[in-house]
Amino acid sequence: MPLPARPCILYHIGMKVSDIGEFGLIHRLHRQIDARGLPQPGADGLRFPLRVGIGDDAAAWETSAATELLTTDTMVEGVHFTRKPTRFGRPLTTWREVGWKAMASNLSDIAAMGGVPHYALITLGLPQNEDVESIDELYHGLLDACEAYGAAIIGGDIVGSPVFFITVALTGVTGSPLLLRNTARPGDQVAVTGTLGGAEGGLRMLLEGLAFDEATTTALLQAHLHRQPRVPEGRVLAANGVRCAMDVSDGLVDDLGKLCLASRVAARVFAHRLPLHPALRAAFPGQETALALRSGEEYELLFAASPAIMARVCPLLPAGATVVGEIVAGEPGGVSVEDERGRPVQVAKGGWDHLRP
Amino acid sequence: MPLPARPCILYHIGMKVSDIGEFGLIHRLHRQIDARGLPQPGADGLRFPLRVGIGDDAAAWETSAATELLTTDTMVEGVHFTRKPTRFGRPLTTWREVGWKAMASNLSDIAAMGGVPHYALITLGLPQNEDVESIDELYHGLLDACEAYGAAIIGGDIVGSPVFFITVALTGVTGSPLLLRNTARPGDQVAVTGTLGGAEGGLRMLLEGLAFDEATTTALLQAHLHRQPRVPEGRVLAANGVRCAMDVSDGLVDDLGKLCLASRVAARVFAHRLPLHPALRAAFPGQETALALRSGEEYELLFAASPAIMARVCPLLPAGATVVGEIVAGEPGGVSVEDERGRPVQVAKGGWDHLRP
Repeated sequence: MPLPARPCILYHIGMKVSDIGEFGLIHRLHRQIDARGLPQPGADGLRFPLRVGIGDDAAAWETSAATELLTTDTMVEGVHFTRKPTRFGRPLTTWREVGWKAMASNLSDIAAMGGVPHYALITLGLPQNEDVESIDELYHGLLDACEAYGAAIIGGDIVGSPVFFITVALTGVTGSPLLLRNTARPGDQVAVTGTLGGAEGGLRMLLEGLAFDEATTTALLQAHLHRQPRVPEGRVLAANGVRCAMDVSDGLVDDLGKLCLASRVAARVFAHRLPLHPALRAAFPGQETALALRSGEEYELLFAASPAIMARVCPLLPAGATVVGEIVAGEPGGVSVEDERGRPVQVAKGGWDHLRP
Repeated sequence: MPLPARPCILYHIGMKVSDIGEFGLIHRLHRQIDARGLPQPGADGLRFPLRVGIGDDAAAWETSAATELLTTDTMVEGVHFTRKPTRFGRPLTTWREVGWKAMASNLSDIAAMGGVPHYALITLGLPQNEDVESIDELYHGLLDACEAYGAAIIGGDIVGSPVFFITVALTGVTGSPLLLRNTARPGDQVAVTGTLGGAEGGLRMLLEGLAFDEATTTALLQAHLHRQPRVPEGRVLAANGVRCAMDVSDGLVDDLGKLCLASRVAARVFAHRLPLHPALRAAFPGQETALALRSGEEYELLFAASPAIMARVCPLLPAGATVVGEIVAGEPGGVSVEDERGRPVQVAKGGWDHLRP
């Protein structure tokens, strides 16, 4: 699902999408959509009121039965994954891992709204010379992830395409209040489930062909390619008074910036409190914090709540959670990172903009 | 949405997707999905029972509020459309027309279930050098179609891709019984809304640079590039006792074959009764019937019902409808076409299989 719109950007004729980037384009299209307005409910009473549109982890509407959610995420070969061989005698990503990840990123969006995932449609763009067995493996990965979280594939579309891509559209349901991005308030604490840095560490290991002991290698592979979306954790947060959350898909600092922008607040992050993935110390000594701050596709939940709620909810989370910062008044979207003595920590720009070179 | 599964096909190692084609692949993946089974409803009571899975125009599930629908369709540049210039001083498809068509094909799926379209997510795969203005135009087309049918764009995903593609996921709602593919019975009449042949005629005109008078040119362009999904007609059918329908997206004979296969019946089509698009006689004399039999992407509704229901419902349809054949017992999926004297009419294979050369 798209990310929150950025402040207005000036445009010129002949502009390419790479000139304004993913977020500039989303902002522009969002304005075009808003200019048309929402359709009026028909006399048939069949149209449900929209609760959350563009800018959160999933869209949401209210029916008399429940709050319903819908999200979509896409992976394109050569952009989001590659089957290039590695020194490990395996491709950088196997087809089964592509399937798991394609479903996991959508499950994570539903988790980040506090919902239960439900029904999925799968769209495949397939080159004619693709192996049937590859697609079988891909589906094993999709179905593994569905099975683990109670979702089901109920349809989709298969088209020819010069490049492989997969789009998943996933519904979700909840009876609890939603977890939104725009509900953080100064004085809230900021926490994150599980650990950070493993996804980026695993990717670097594969890309650079780094050799570690077997336990480290296994742990980093798992952290990069077989993430567990935090669906049970999202349910616990929503049921225990938390109202602000998103998933970590573009890196902690980047994503916290988006949450703060949506909430019109700023945040401080305490670098020494980050829950580091346990394999990082051995594999990337001295770089653990930098990795944890920028590692994307972690699918951990990042959430904000009052200290009282935080103290109550964190012990209830199956994956655990760690308070890593606080919400403050300030430039909307501003995130500062400091060390244990309050000195600023420079953060390498993580941030994925799919439309920029 | 995918089409009904075909009977079992044998597979061999090293097989390419082009060897088994779109329908062979869907059948194979369908079996893999079925082997895993549906998830059990959770104790939270949040999972809604599935009503229609793979194999109809859209998936459907039941809530206490309504029957909900979800479909998805994709267009890939160079596969489903091209912006090649034509002799008419315009590209084969403008961006606004791509937008209209991408939404219209999904609206048509919802119409073919008897539903009201509701919320859409848009996924764009964009090359970095794509013009921003092209995407603006694309969105104008998407929003034109949404506005015409009461749908709304509420989110999506934008990713980088070496080839342009657009995927729409669209929800729908209905309180009436569904229009399904597997409910035709011998003795039913077969009818189709509107007219046939214009979409293929318009495409041929553009591809071959054929010059006609202005009225014919305009009518064929409209028929090819600016189809009106039959949403009101689907509502009328569902509310008046029709239980079997699908939309004409791969050509009348092809699609009727799918409907018959799903219903385990056969059909006869009377070629002289086809409702021919009015521009065909002037533009393609002698070829009208052949065009009408195979023209795809017509987005007309093809439906089957008893003669009594048919007599009552056809006059109520805003786009009109014509009885073109009948359902008979016979080889499931078999469709024969005959002329006014009962002689067989040969049908050129239309049929779109996106994975075959």
